[in-house]
Amino acid sequence: MIDPALFQENERTASVVDERQYVEVGALDCECGKRLESVTVAYETWGALNEDRSNAILLFHALSGDAHAIGWWDRLVGPGKAIDTDRYFVICSNALGGCQGTTGPSSTGPDNYFYGSSFPMITVGDMVEAQGRLLDHLGIQQLHAVAGGSMGGMQALEWTVRFPNRVRKCILTATCGAHSAMQIGFNEAGRQAIIRDPNFNGGDYYESQPPDNGLSVARMLGHLSFLSQEAFEAKFGRRLQSKEKPDMNFGIEFEVESYLNYQGDKFTKRFDANSLLHLTRAIDYYEFQNADRAEAHYLVVSYTSDWIYPTSQSIALEAQLKAAKKNVTRHEIDLPYGHDAFLLDGDHQAKLIAEFLCR
Amino acid sequence: MIDPALFQENERTASVVDERQYVEVGALDCECGKRLESVTVAYETWGALNEDRSNAILLFHALSGDAHAIGWWDRLVGPGKAIDTDRYFVICSNALGGCQGTTGPSSTGPDNYFYGSSFPMITVGDMVEAQGRLLDHLGIQQLHAVAGGSMGGMQALEWTVRFPNRVRKCILTATCGAHSAMQIGFNEAGRQAIIRDPNFNGGDYYESQPPDNGLSVARMLGHLSFLSQEAFEAKFGRRLQSKEKPDMNFGIEFEVESYLNYQGDKFTKRFDANSLLHLTRAIDYYEFQNADRAEAHYLVVSYTSDWIYPTSQSIALEAQLKAAKKNVTRHEIDLPYGHDAFLLDGDHQAKLIAEFLCR
Repeated sequence: MIDPALFQENERTASVVDERQYVEVGALDCECGKRLESVTVAYETWGALNEDRSNAILLFHALSGDAHAIGWWDRLVGPGKAIDTDRYFVICSNALGGCQGTTGPSSTGPDNYFYGSSFPMITVGDMVEAQGRLLDHLGIQQLHAVAGGSMGGMQALEWTVRFPNRVRKCILTATCGAHSAMQIGFNEAGRQAIIRDPNFNGGDYYESQPPDNGLSVARMLGHLSFLSQEAFEAKFGRRLQSKEKPDMNFGIEFEVESYLNYQGDKFTKRFDANSLLHLTRAIDYYEFQNADRAEAHYLVVSYTSDWIYPTSQSIALEAQLKAAKKNVTRHEIDLPYGHDAFLLDGDHQAKLIAEFLCR
Repeated sequence: MIDPALFQENERTASVVDERQYVEVGALDCECGKRLESVTVAYETWGALNEDRSNAILLFHALSGDAHAIGWWDRLVGPGKAIDTDRYFVICSNALGGCQGTTGPSSTGPDNYFYGSSFPMITVGDMVEAQGRLLDHLGIQQLHAVAGGSMGGMQALEWTVRFPNRVRKCILTATCGAHSAMQIGFNEAGRQAIIRDPNFNGGDYYESQPPDNGLSVARMLGHLSFLSQEAFEAKFGRRLQSKEKPDMNFGIEFEVESYLNYQGDKFTKRFDANSLLHLTRAIDYYEFQNADRAEAHYLVVSYTSDWIYPTSQSIALEAQLKAAKKNVTRHEIDLPYGHDAFLLDGDHQAKLIAEFLCR
């Protein structure tokens, strides 16, 4: 049974700018061969670092998230919650290539121009490198844990092989070690919606009209993949949008249409089209490798109704880690919400995470 | 196991214009309240009508199909096949609102202007009304069977209640009695890709550049929903498009991207954006009702891997028909191809259909 009220609480948009801190972490030689002369990382922290600096947990947001983890993961992060800010020093940074404070395509480069089309292609490895420097800045050598869902899970995974001795535990939810053809396909259709918008202008639109229509359509596609068939039914069914019978035109007829257009258009107010291109590309490129290097213990969580990051990918990841003789615990949680379950589930997932962190 | 060769044979585009026939079926008062002053129906036939005119089968194409059923349903229709043209007189017409010969938004109206934005909103009932007049023209009072998949199935269903005494058997594959919120959502995202393309111009683009970019993106969405996760993996996996390593840019990197862009762009050469809007709207509006009126026997087929028209919808349809005390046989076929299975499966589905037609 789905409680529709759950969805109304889910605000992917929460962003509290004035709690953000910023650190300049220097030049970054990206894996693509290009160089960012100067990288700023925006981040937030909650709780206090203990004396031996051993209680830090680094969180990673998903595609459209930001450093404000206590917003998008409010069911898991906070005083007394699974990721207990009374107990742990919790850190989250905006990903490299994003648009919420960390250097991305909408930032200005050393020449004071917007990067736009000149922003280098970034990788999950580049994101992790920038985060490593944030940790250096904070004086934290080893993390108690890294944790993330979806795109965030890929960064968590990469942390365990890029900085093996800096991570004790790794929490992965609704994610995978490498995107499937279908996942790449959904991302590509969204990218094409943006790239084919005449306002895109090859990526250099910061001093003109941005490609809002393309970005909005791309976001509709995203939302279509976030929920399960069952969740869409529970949330909207075939209900008309505030009317008894259809208007018989191409305006909004059904509630689900109103929802998608609203989500799409709202997204253009807070997110940059170039960031969507770069972040989706980075996760499409990503392939988790060199599992043998890792020292962390892993918790892998998936959801029965998540058709875009299906359990089969978690099983494959578990197999990859076990083949490298790593300590892995995997759980599939039976909830009907689709991919969004990793944001909505503050119950089953929370218990698994709380237990895993104390183990 | 998926045989990738299967997909290469699947050509949704087959269209043999010179086998088409046309009939003018008069004015049509659409369910929306508007009137089409003159409707042309394009159709094809195969086989011969028997003396007592009792061996006719009417087929209905899916969203992007046309009257050339022997093309898109070549695994089922032909001499000696399940829908045996040596035995049956098989008819298929282009749907009202389409763009392959039957009156649609790209047709010219009585004033010799393209309909464009003035084309009335059409319904599945209007499509069926136009087909009924085609049958009158052909002198066929009662059909041995109606048959269709996806959008075609909705027309077949509607035939059984709108013209109850004209249909003996009804074959429904990969379809449903009413779209779910998710199905409406996928259609809406495609519509928005078109409507938000500046070239759309409110639907009046026939004398300027058509909204090809929007239509192409809409088609990519369609193709994302036609295949299962497993079928995408079998067909493309993570293979790069004719290269050893990625170029690290926003061009085509993966084979699945090439496929989607190719399918999207190819579609703009043969299909009209307004037709996509009208046909998707018609099937989103559709709700199968008044099952008690029907006199036909029903065969309902679905596929395990079809996530956009899932078996749960066939089960619901079966329940609706059985509640109205109709004769229904339902089968779920275990094949991994996704929604496209209804086009690709010339084996299991064919046997069920052949048997049902002779029963």
